[in-house]
Amino acid sequence: MAGYLEMIEAALDAALPGEGFRPAVVAEAMRWAVEGGGKRIRPQICLASAVAAGGCAEDALMPACAIEVLHSFTLVHDDLPAMDNDTVRRGKASVWAKFGEANAILAGDALQALAFDLAARSPRNAAAVVAELATRAVGVVRGQVEDLALARGGGASADMVDFVYEHKTADLFMASAVMGALAAGAAEEHVERLRRFALKLGLAFQYEDDLLDGDSPYARDVTERLVRETTAAAIEALKGLPGDTSFLASLAERLARRKM
Amino acid sequence: MAGYLEMIEAALDAALPGEGFRPAVVAEAMRWAVEGGGKRIRPQICLASAVAAGGCAEDALMPACAIEVLHSFTLVHDDLPAMDNDTVRRGKASVWAKFGEANAILAGDALQALAFDLAARSPRNAAAVVAELATRAVGVVRGQVEDLALARGGGASADMVDFVYEHKTADLFMASAVMGALAAGAAEEHVERLRRFALKLGLAFQYEDDLLDGDSPYARDVTERLVRETTAAAIEALKGLPGDTSFLASLAERLARRKM
Repeated sequence: MAGYLEMIEAALDAALPGEGFRPAVVAEAMRWAVEGGGKRIRPQICLASAVAAGGCAEDALMPACAIEVLHSFTLVHDDLPAMDNDTVRRGKASVWAKFGEANAILAGDALQALAFDLAARSPRNAAAVVAELATRAVGVVRGQVEDLALARGGGASADMVDFVYEHKTADLFMASAVMGALAAGAAEEHVERLRRFALKLGLAFQYEDDLLDGDSPYARDVTERLVRETTAAAIEALKGLPGDTSFLASLAERLARRKM
Repeated sequence: MAGYLEMIEAALDAALPGEGFRPAVVAEAMRWAVEGGGKRIRPQICLASAVAAGGCAEDALMPACAIEVLHSFTLVHDDLPAMDNDTVRRGKASVWAKFGEANAILAGDALQALAFDLAARSPRNAAAVVAELATRAVGVVRGQVEDLALARGGGASADMVDFVYEHKTADLFMASAVMGALAAGAAEEHVERLRRFALKLGLAFQYEDDLLDGDSPYARDVTERLVRETTAAAIEALKGLPGDTSFLASLAERLARRKM
């Protein structure tokens, strides 16, 4: 696991623009958004999915960077004044609070483009990897718009909550697993198992998030049951995969018990 | 030429989300941004570059849609209050003026993701097509940030003007030509000729734009000379290509003489 994190941090550092990039503020804002504080859950899912599919983690390194860069971009835009209006992210100033609103919009846009550049560097199935990331990136937007509608009030039906959880959270978990599997050249059946794993894991992650934030749309005992059930379903989906699934199973258990 | 435009409009209509897409406002904002009023210069360059490289226009249809969708996304974000604060675009309300700021940020983000989805559908060299689009999309951000710095005042050096013109305008012209050539399976040498054509055409386009807007950083006669020289250089770059270059040459001449 330390191995995965080190691989990811080194590859992200190499992928982001550095010295000599013009204008410097774009490179600085992009690095500010990606560096420091992230738990790198999605890129770890990506690497571990390549392994679970019978490949090696290195196969999925560029897609893993792609998903973390894309996730970071969504946070930059979520924090904007017109959206959640957050001035703090991961314990430091949000990108717009530090670099201004226009730079935050544009650095976010550049991060999304970089994410697709990285996805296209997958050693196998590059076009399918890009298509998966694109579909899920549109999905995040769909979830976010529906979530903003929820936040403005109106009845939150179970159907609306499901839609938001699936798209706002589970979509990028699914992209992580599927891109990792595709980069490893996995068989269709194994790609689909990993997609199901990631969908259930994403839902469990969101329910647990609600418990930690104390703002679940359901009663506490119902939400706790949902965390247990979706975590069990995620681990169940791993059966029948040709590679080592222990990292993914243990990640699912750790996320369900996490305290932050 | 009417043939190219009809192909592009039909393919864009098929590519954009429609009935049943949830939430509907995302599909509506995406269509609002792409439909109506655009001259479709970039996708026409893309199709004609496939032909100039010895392939057929159909090869480049998905990359052509990709470049128009990406261009539309950049306009949606350029118009935002934190950027150019424009309420009108192509004779109708800009996306944020019509759908609100948050929806405009998010619909723009979804359009960028869709652009990469379309680029990945290139029948040849899909990974290289995506990489080209990504590099130029980051380039547009770089040009835009430098342009905002110019607009805030400070001396506009010739170097800064060149940087802004190359990235803010010529980058997407280059992506159009290069993606079209790659989709047609063009030889490296022909891809580079088309890239040079598009760079010069993009610069000519921007100089002519300055003349039409009356805000050139140079004297009028200097700018007129720059339009003539870069247009001639663009047409010169077409020599030695294996396919029919007449559409591209005539486009360069028409853009240099355009009145809007």
